[in-house]
Amino acid sequence: MRDVAIIGASTTQFGRAQWSLLKLMAEAAHGAITNADLGGRKIDAVYVANMGSARNNRQAGIASALVDRMNLYPAAADTVENGPASGASAVKNGFLAVASGMCDLVLVAGGERMREVNNIEATEFVSFLSHRYAEYIYGITLPALAGMFARLWMNKYGVTSEHLAMVAIKNHSNAMLNPNAHIKMPITMEGILHSPDAEMNNPYIAEPLRFFDCCPVSDGAAAVLLAPAEMAGEFTKKPVIISGFGQATDTQAVHERPDPTVLTAVQIAARKAFDMAGLKPRDISLAELHDAFTILEIAQSEQVGFFPEGTGHIALEKGETQIAGKLPINTSGGLKAKGHPVGATGVSQIVELVFQLRGEAGKRQVKNPKHGFALNFGGFGNNVVATILTKGA
Amino acid sequence: MRDVAIIGASTTQFGRAQWSLLKLMAEAAHGAITNADLGGRKIDAVYVANMGSARNNRQAGIASALVDRMNLYPAAADTVENGPASGASAVKNGFLAVASGMCDLVLVAGGERMREVNNIEATEFVSFLSHRYAEYIYGITLPALAGMFARLWMNKYGVTSEHLAMVAIKNHSNAMLNPNAHIKMPITMEGILHSPDAEMNNPYIAEPLRFFDCCPVSDGAAAVLLAPAEMAGEFTKKPVIISGFGQATDTQAVHERPDPTVLTAVQIAARKAFDMAGLKPRDISLAELHDAFTILEIAQSEQVGFFPEGTGHIALEKGETQIAGKLPINTSGGLKAKGHPVGATGVSQIVELVFQLRGEAGKRQVKNPKHGFALNFGGFGNNVVATILTKGA
Repeated sequence: MRDVAIIGASTTQFGRAQWSLLKLMAEAAHGAITNADLGGRKIDAVYVANMGSARNNRQAGIASALVDRMNLYPAAADTVENGPASGASAVKNGFLAVASGMCDLVLVAGGERMREVNNIEATEFVSFLSHRYAEYIYGITLPALAGMFARLWMNKYGVTSEHLAMVAIKNHSNAMLNPNAHIKMPITMEGILHSPDAEMNNPYIAEPLRFFDCCPVSDGAAAVLLAPAEMAGEFTKKPVIISGFGQATDTQAVHERPDPTVLTAVQIAARKAFDMAGLKPRDISLAELHDAFTILEIAQSEQVGFFPEGTGHIALEKGETQIAGKLPINTSGGLKAKGHPVGATGVSQIVELVFQLRGEAGKRQVKNPKHGFALNFGGFGNNVVATILTKGA
Repeated sequence: MRDVAIIGASTTQFGRAQWSLLKLMAEAAHGAITNADLGGRKIDAVYVANMGSARNNRQAGIASALVDRMNLYPAAADTVENGPASGASAVKNGFLAVASGMCDLVLVAGGERMREVNNIEATEFVSFLSHRYAEYIYGITLPALAGMFARLWMNKYGVTSEHLAMVAIKNHSNAMLNPNAHIKMPITMEGILHSPDAEMNNPYIAEPLRFFDCCPVSDGAAAVLLAPAEMAGEFTKKPVIISGFGQATDTQAVHERPDPTVLTAVQIAARKAFDMAGLKPRDISLAELHDAFTILEIAQSEQVGFFPEGTGHIALEKGETQIAGKLPINTSGGLKAKGHPVGATGVSQIVELVFQLRGEAGKRQVKNPKHGFALNFGGFGNNVVATILTKGA
């Protein structure tokens, strides 16, 4: 396998888009392509990450449409779907196209325009990821699964609503430093939990999860451009190496897991990525975790190996996961505040790591990061992709 | 790149399914897995080809769902969508996973359950592949594009309605020999074109294309199991080698092509596949072409290089593309009569070539085939994948 580098990275503003899905994706793709100096070299293949264009945007073959929009013929083009982990899966498949030697330059663009339908439709659409006969037909949604998971986790490890709120407060605070984040709104413990208005400001969505424990429904796109590591220097002064991938699946119905608080696919995906990269969790400088719900950031921060079992919320409380902490988590604002356009999210996590590793993260820049880790969580943890990036020489 | 072999292949009955999409895909996947002798070895990754599950079947993350159904955890799992060429794109990505060295055993399953919605909905859904602002909003459908293409082609090369009917008659006749085909109904030139009832039996769908020029709307699934060629002998006595892939894109709006009768992406995809395999069109023993409409079999048979320009219909007339002819085309019955469950089709074409190359095609067996060629045509030729398979040693 050839080593693969990221030579370009870009994201659109996340939020409520004024444009079509295709235009959003083209904006991100154009950003990633012009971020590198290709000197007229052509792109061999395009991978698109998208979950719902046929359902929500009346469009199929979106990868071919992007090639058309960007005038990239005759590049090969495929769309990859893996629920909310579509982004990392698309990067993985783009990586394989380069690593195998089949392609040199590969564009990976993830995008979603979820707000073309209303929030109820969007939530129902995401629930198509649940088990059709054991979950979906009984009306389960992802927030409902996360609520039950949160209750079990809180009981098991003594995590409180205040801990969940701390994740939200940290990630909202980070998003204030990210010009492309969806939610730029400072929140406080007082305002969302302890004031007389807290019940109204922050109602339960799926008890014990409240409004500010849940990510928004966002539109957005993000893109990266891949090249063989040995050629990367021709195109950029700041290559970032893809040093590890791990992907793993678990039971689709959450109740079939021997202990539903154990996210087996998270553990296996992370271990595979660390093994491939030849690194340990302690080598990681910063991480983007999949905080679609605040509880998931705490749970994942332990199960990928950053903190011992039952101590993720303690590290959080101590400030270790803040931008200036020992292991900054979700410097971008995370899904919680940067936003979660499902097909874009995994690519966007990787874009944030690239910006950080290149020292281009502005006011949210982590000091001298060397290795970044991203966890993209599909379904309710039934298909998880971990990616490790390393600052190029 | 490592060489990659197909060690297992299977298809479901195509037609109107009694079962869910997931059960259809599991049936094909189980067939492909048990077709090989894995001796307890585990599958590393699953690729699913599907175009419309979120739109038509209220299901997303179908690759993860298939892993769950088949108990293949923690195998990696991704869904690949490339319109009606999703099947070949998924096989290509599975190929890259093995060729790169990332995975050993990779399952690729394509499936679609289109008849969960009605025929008008299904046709509208497929039209999501057209250009949103230049075609879709004006009400174009794939049959309409094919009708205009047919008229241009017939005028240019002197092809008649009888030639189109010959494709249908041949492919219906082949499908009679394929137990898994959707349409098992012999048709005659008299019955569909020349009898007093022909107008009623075979009405225009998109003039000059009639009912029997168009593929049916089908449910079905097909699957193949991939392994490194060097290991294939451990799992099967009859490995089939994937010797070439080629994929190419073209303008999405058909009217933007300098000459709409020139299918540039077909030409480039085929040339790339032949180059990779080190073969010429004359080396091919049989081909599965993408006859969603009869005219496409004639056009593709020329543009991939089997017959000189403007002579595809002559070769057809002479019987050269029949099972006993010089270059049998669509021995399976093709999309026209085997059926066209869009996500399954590309995998199913490859399954037919595997059956033929292993000498297991029963009454439709071609004599001693060595190399098989498949063309999977996405959109109206804006994303095309060519695959070449070679009989193993």
